[in-house]
Amino acid sequence: VSSHLEAELREQPEALRRLIERQRGYAEQIGDLFRSHDVQYILIASRGSSSNAARYAQYLLGRAHRVPVAFATPSLFTLYEQPPRLDGALVIGISQSGKSPDVVEVVAEARRQGRPTVALTNSPASPLGMTADAVLKLEAGDERAVAATKTYVNSLGAVALIFATTTADRQALVELERLPGQLAAQLDRSWDDVGALDVFGRIEGGTVVARGINYCTSFEIALKIRELSGLLFESYSAADLMHGPVAAIAPGWPVLAVAPSGPALAAMADAVAAVGARGARTIVISDDERLLASGEIGLPLLEGVPEWLSPLVAVLPGQLAALRFAQLRGIDLDRPLGLSKVTLTR
Amino acid sequence: VSSHLEAELREQPEALRRLIERQRGYAEQIGDLFRSHDVQYILIASRGSSSNAARYAQYLLGRAHRVPVAFATPSLFTLYEQPPRLDGALVIGISQSGKSPDVVEVVAEARRQGRPTVALTNSPASPLGMTADAVLKLEAGDERAVAATKTYVNSLGAVALIFATTTADRQALVELERLPGQLAAQLDRSWDDVGALDVFGRIEGGTVVARGINYCTSFEIALKIRELSGLLFESYSAADLMHGPVAAIAPGWPVLAVAPSGPALAAMADAVAAVGARGARTIVISDDERLLASGEIGLPLLEGVPEWLSPLVAVLPGQLAALRFAQLRGIDLDRPLGLSKVTLTR
Repeated sequence: VSSHLEAELREQPEALRRLIERQRGYAEQIGDLFRSHDVQYILIASRGSSSNAARYAQYLLGRAHRVPVAFATPSLFTLYEQPPRLDGALVIGISQSGKSPDVVEVVAEARRQGRPTVALTNSPASPLGMTADAVLKLEAGDERAVAATKTYVNSLGAVALIFATTTADRQALVELERLPGQLAAQLDRSWDDVGALDVFGRIEGGTVVARGINYCTSFEIALKIRELSGLLFESYSAADLMHGPVAAIAPGWPVLAVAPSGPALAAMADAVAAVGARGARTIVISDDERLLASGEIGLPLLEGVPEWLSPLVAVLPGQLAALRFAQLRGIDLDRPLGLSKVTLTR
Repeated sequence: VSSHLEAELREQPEALRRLIERQRGYAEQIGDLFRSHDVQYILIASRGSSSNAARYAQYLLGRAHRVPVAFATPSLFTLYEQPPRLDGALVIGISQSGKSPDVVEVVAEARRQGRPTVALTNSPASPLGMTADAVLKLEAGDERAVAATKTYVNSLGAVALIFATTTADRQALVELERLPGQLAAQLDRSWDDVGALDVFGRIEGGTVVARGINYCTSFEIALKIRELSGLLFESYSAADLMHGPVAAIAPGWPVLAVAPSGPALAAMADAVAAVGARGARTIVISDDERLLASGEIGLPLLEGVPEWLSPLVAVLPGQLAALRFAQLRGIDLDRPLGLSKVTLTR
């Protein structure tokens, strides 16, 4: 292994296993926070990769608690100094470093208003960890590569753990405990598959699409490719793409579809057909044989992962694609393009 | 005038004036909806350009009512058939055609749960208009170009009218009534300025950035350029851009900054400097002389528009830029790139 990034990619199954083992009790306490307050909606503050974990929470916690999940507009709390009343809210801050000042400010305001607050962070001693009522430590260990990989998967894992310990479905925890092994198998498989992308060595960018619970995966894969390779990747909901932005999908433009089996599969098959009809070059991440075969390149997902956990495995071929695109461009994987690990925004 | 698009661009001041005159009474009734229910948060369902009007509402109604504004995840209502409990919510559906099935379904579910619902639509007789408790007609008149212009500005106008008739600040309505004249003056000015963009005749794409209340403007300008010209334009919050995606801003890449005076101006000046340091070619839409002068091209905004109304004028130079980029590429302005006017997504 020649870079921190590759080492950390390989550590992901073990990091997830550690999270599930060590933090299960804390996740149950967070479930108590839901039950002991009259929670009418969830408000999440986040930036960067953590915003993609927030998108996962929007679907999963929205379904678990049957409440809407809103994203905070940090500038209303900071630049505009007009924070909203938060009656009825449970507020979650997600930040692997725990240092993002605007995320901390949203959580601090919620505490001032007496609302229950939760931090998902890799650093419980950080400003975010010190501000929230309850902290779920991500247990990812040190992450030295600039591009977040194991902290991203473990932030999804933290959301999944909160779901599994609060839903009535006892099968959920069993399914989650099976996941680290499935991650390891998926990584092995995808590492073999990703060389197929070398035919995309001269692209300038691409569009990643998904719908439903893997909307987060689409954003995270686009961000990861972009951070590591500098290629112009973007992300759209398959539904929003058809409302105009598809105009820029020209013949030969790469479109990567994230489409695990589930309620969104049929809509994704429609989207792949629609961009294919415009002449796009398609890459498909899926466990559905027919959809895989419809793409120029198929990056298969192993079967047997329930849809609610699919974002934790579907991101893996995307991470490896990002690594591959960066290698094809000769970029230093641990210090890509002048980025720094922690970005402080007000 | 040689296209519907150009005619409709020019109609915008008059369309806004009509909205303000005719719909003020209905806007006041919608204010009563807020007061007669215990509204703890606002939930908005929308697609396409209407989602950018929703982003404006997120800031403006969030500030007016001091409640968070959440965006619905339509697929939870449709594909997943797991709609959330909406206790505490006031639900707004925004759709110029009123025909988007997923937007209609979110509003229908809210009514089934007994929550107050509002439709902002150009077609009160549409499924959306027939489903909501209260309808604010956009009064934009027929829009025949595929790219939404006057319906977009009037959907912002509808949000501003609801704000102006519900806030305690009586100055707000006076400021809004002054706006149609300011729109007309801005259009005249920007039509003269936009020829400066011809030096960008060979670009392949660009990045639009903003922060705070003009986040909506950034998204709308990127969408409009993309729809009309097929150029790969994208939009970022200036804060999110710095969390990684800036990696793809290479020397020579166009960055368009939307930066009217206000609390976000300093953060925007930082962003323009940061992308400039990476060698980006910058276009600045602002009323701030110093920031305008810092860009390769400045597209000035006229002074005297209060910040809360700035998204209705700041979008105009962007619309004209989109028109110009399309003309430079020889594209039919009314039927760009195989798009259709109404997109139906589940």
